[in-house]
Amino acid sequence: MSDTLNTQLCDAVDAGFDRQIAFLSELTAHPSTRGNEQSAQDFMAAELSARGYALDRWQIDVADIQHLPGFSPVLGTYEDAVNVVGTHRSATQKGRSLILNGHIDVVPAGPLDMWDTPPFKPRVKDGWLYGRGGGDMKAGLASNLFALDALRACGLAPAADVFYQSVVEEECTGNGALACLARGYQADAALIPEPFSEHLVTAQLGVIWFQVHLKGRPTHVAYAGSGANAIEAAFPLIKALHDMEHRWNDIEHRHAEYAHMDHALNLNVGKFEGGDWTSSVPAWSTFDVRMAIFPGQSIKAAKEEIEKTILEAASANDFLRNAPPEIVYHGFHAEGYALSDDSSAMARQAISTLEAAHSTATGETLEREAITATTDARFFGLYADTPTLVYGPKAEAIHGFNERVDLESMRRVTKATALFIAQWCGTEDI
Amino acid sequence: MSDTLNTQLCDAVDAGFDRQIAFLSELTAHPSTRGNEQSAQDFMAAELSARGYALDRWQIDVADIQHLPGFSPVLGTYEDAVNVVGTHRSATQKGRSLILNGHIDVVPAGPLDMWDTPPFKPRVKDGWLYGRGGGDMKAGLASNLFALDALRACGLAPAADVFYQSVVEEECTGNGALACLARGYQADAALIPEPFSEHLVTAQLGVIWFQVHLKGRPTHVAYAGSGANAIEAAFPLIKALHDMEHRWNDIEHRHAEYAHMDHALNLNVGKFEGGDWTSSVPAWSTFDVRMAIFPGQSIKAAKEEIEKTILEAASANDFLRNAPPEIVYHGFHAEGYALSDDSSAMARQAISTLEAAHSTATGETLEREAITATTDARFFGLYADTPTLVYGPKAEAIHGFNERVDLESMRRVTKATALFIAQWCGTEDI
Repeated sequence: MSDTLNTQLCDAVDAGFDRQIAFLSELTAHPSTRGNEQSAQDFMAAELSARGYALDRWQIDVADIQHLPGFSPVLGTYEDAVNVVGTHRSATQKGRSLILNGHIDVVPAGPLDMWDTPPFKPRVKDGWLYGRGGGDMKAGLASNLFALDALRACGLAPAADVFYQSVVEEECTGNGALACLARGYQADAALIPEPFSEHLVTAQLGVIWFQVHLKGRPTHVAYAGSGANAIEAAFPLIKALHDMEHRWNDIEHRHAEYAHMDHALNLNVGKFEGGDWTSSVPAWSTFDVRMAIFPGQSIKAAKEEIEKTILEAASANDFLRNAPPEIVYHGFHAEGYALSDDSSAMARQAISTLEAAHSTATGETLEREAITATTDARFFGLYADTPTLVYGPKAEAIHGFNERVDLESMRRVTKATALFIAQWCGTEDI
Repeated sequence: MSDTLNTQLCDAVDAGFDRQIAFLSELTAHPSTRGNEQSAQDFMAAELSARGYALDRWQIDVADIQHLPGFSPVLGTYEDAVNVVGTHRSATQKGRSLILNGHIDVVPAGPLDMWDTPPFKPRVKDGWLYGRGGGDMKAGLASNLFALDALRACGLAPAADVFYQSVVEEECTGNGALACLARGYQADAALIPEPFSEHLVTAQLGVIWFQVHLKGRPTHVAYAGSGANAIEAAFPLIKALHDMEHRWNDIEHRHAEYAHMDHALNLNVGKFEGGDWTSSVPAWSTFDVRMAIFPGQSIKAAKEEIEKTILEAASANDFLRNAPPEIVYHGFHAEGYALSDDSSAMARQAISTLEAAHSTATGETLEREAITATTDARFFGLYADTPTLVYGPKAEAIHGFNERVDLESMRRVTKATALFIAQWCGTEDI
């Protein structure tokens, strides 16, 4: 690829960057938490259509995906769970095809009073765009789209099919990405610009979500001795789960990519609810847990150990022994995935192409990182034999208050992405 | 009082008992949880009016009571917090006046699936009436009303003023009873048929409610080490509160009425809520606590020790040290009350009159009990110098599932109440 084209593409990203920030601001203003993605997807669909991409837009049907590997159980319905894909069909089909994937769903903002400014009124300050989802991962959706725009501004299109995907459900199941697979979208590589500081993600953990339900016999607190407190009965179960977490992090269990990390696998009690009245001994409690697993660790075995841990801890409690906790799976059944375990030629080529693009765009060497979260990369990598590059801008406080993305980092990633597309797919005239 | 009259009154209770059960069923069918007492109070008002009592019905105004001893702080407004009082004015004013008090509010039912039958569809089985509030304390409201009816059936009325009170807010503040005091209702004695197995309550505990708010900096669980888990941060605070609870129960702190009880003062974590998303480290949690105190124990000193306990435990936690818990008082500021500490002649007379009435109605000696809960008796006893008899039917699972009241016990209490009224107030012809 010529230096001239590289320069032209980078210049085109610069020329479009104000529009890209405006796009990111508008997209971040849509409060696309789970179940509320519709207006953000409307916006994405309009942007893709305006650019002439062939639009595919469909509601996820659990019946289409529940038999597939990687499916995660869901408690609710999938009304309003709509994926959007815009397709570029190459006229020449000279190059390698590509999926550009990003998720539109964002996690809840949490208590509004802990934000300096409202989470869905994005603002730019000192080079950062603030807002829920700005980093995770609407900046990535923006960089994918404006990288394609940069080619177009140079009079070029990718010389292979490119599928631009805006999916739901990344933050709880990944069933949005799975639904793209089920619908037949396949390519030679995939790129997901999740916000990991311009590093190439070489491995990601698996994640299991589960919910534990305890029920007691409530009573007036005057007789507290005879009633089981279903809130406090949860505490030793949580302690036992943390003991399990520490065991799973033992050095002998670690995947090679995580050998240097003392505590890659985090167990998080993310929600807790219980009781109805201050002077009634609480009859029930429910808590939601996220636990990570290493690539290669079996979900089935992990679930068995989780269940054993909870039930054993419960058996030490007089009340819970007679009313065992109920364990419900209501989200991630996500396996780990390591790009570094993919020894295919296609994977090597994809990585070296991104290394070159990143180096040209930024003047720096592409760093590698094993992350302690999951991404939708697992679907393409594990279940469609597609090497998947997770590479996106620097963000801070994702899932936290005052979430923000570094706009200059988004600019660099957009440039690297444009160069990557041009090299990976090749180019043809518009 | 003549044996003949006693027999007539008891016969009149028997004669009206089917109607009394029907009344109790209808009253229990009103789901009069806090804020939803209106329809139950409509029913009470109609029943009192139909019997010719002078009706007083008013919405509680915090401004009328917040300066009074015994007031408990409230978080919400008092819209729809309506008290109902029906007054009998004696023509002869020969006897001693009486307040017949009961509360219309009930605690929440909790998960419906743990009830054998719906909590607000009362049913009678094997001599028990089942339903939320049937015992605590709609059976008491019924026995007060039908005891008066028994006098009327004998062609008699009390020869002193009698104030029949149906109050709200007993289960969280007592501000309903306090509002009756503020409105000027006073009498020589009060009777509250709370469901304590036909025992005379000689002492009751005080109760303090407080809410603890924790706030953290949430983050993606991938970085759990750098975020404070606001749910789990609560656990050591709760442990410290239980340590305080045990100290307060030490034998040297006990009121004489509770000297024999190892653990009269119960601390209850009645509600717990925290977190927004399974894969976000929770940013906040809130838990609601009920703690009891002995009669004579200072609320101010108790609150200071509660606050000190929470803040000291928080200071042992890196995160909480920088973001100290907020403690909010949102309900009971209830002092303890011991009828047995009241050495007045009026108190002695009231007790001996009830002893005689109970003995005549049931053939048994009136047993005494110090209870580990609070009741509205404290307002009359502590702040209006009115000896207050807490004496009501046997109930089970109050605040629990399948709450139920023993109908034969309600019959006995109704008879004893009728005899007590006739003796305490004297009688006059209608």
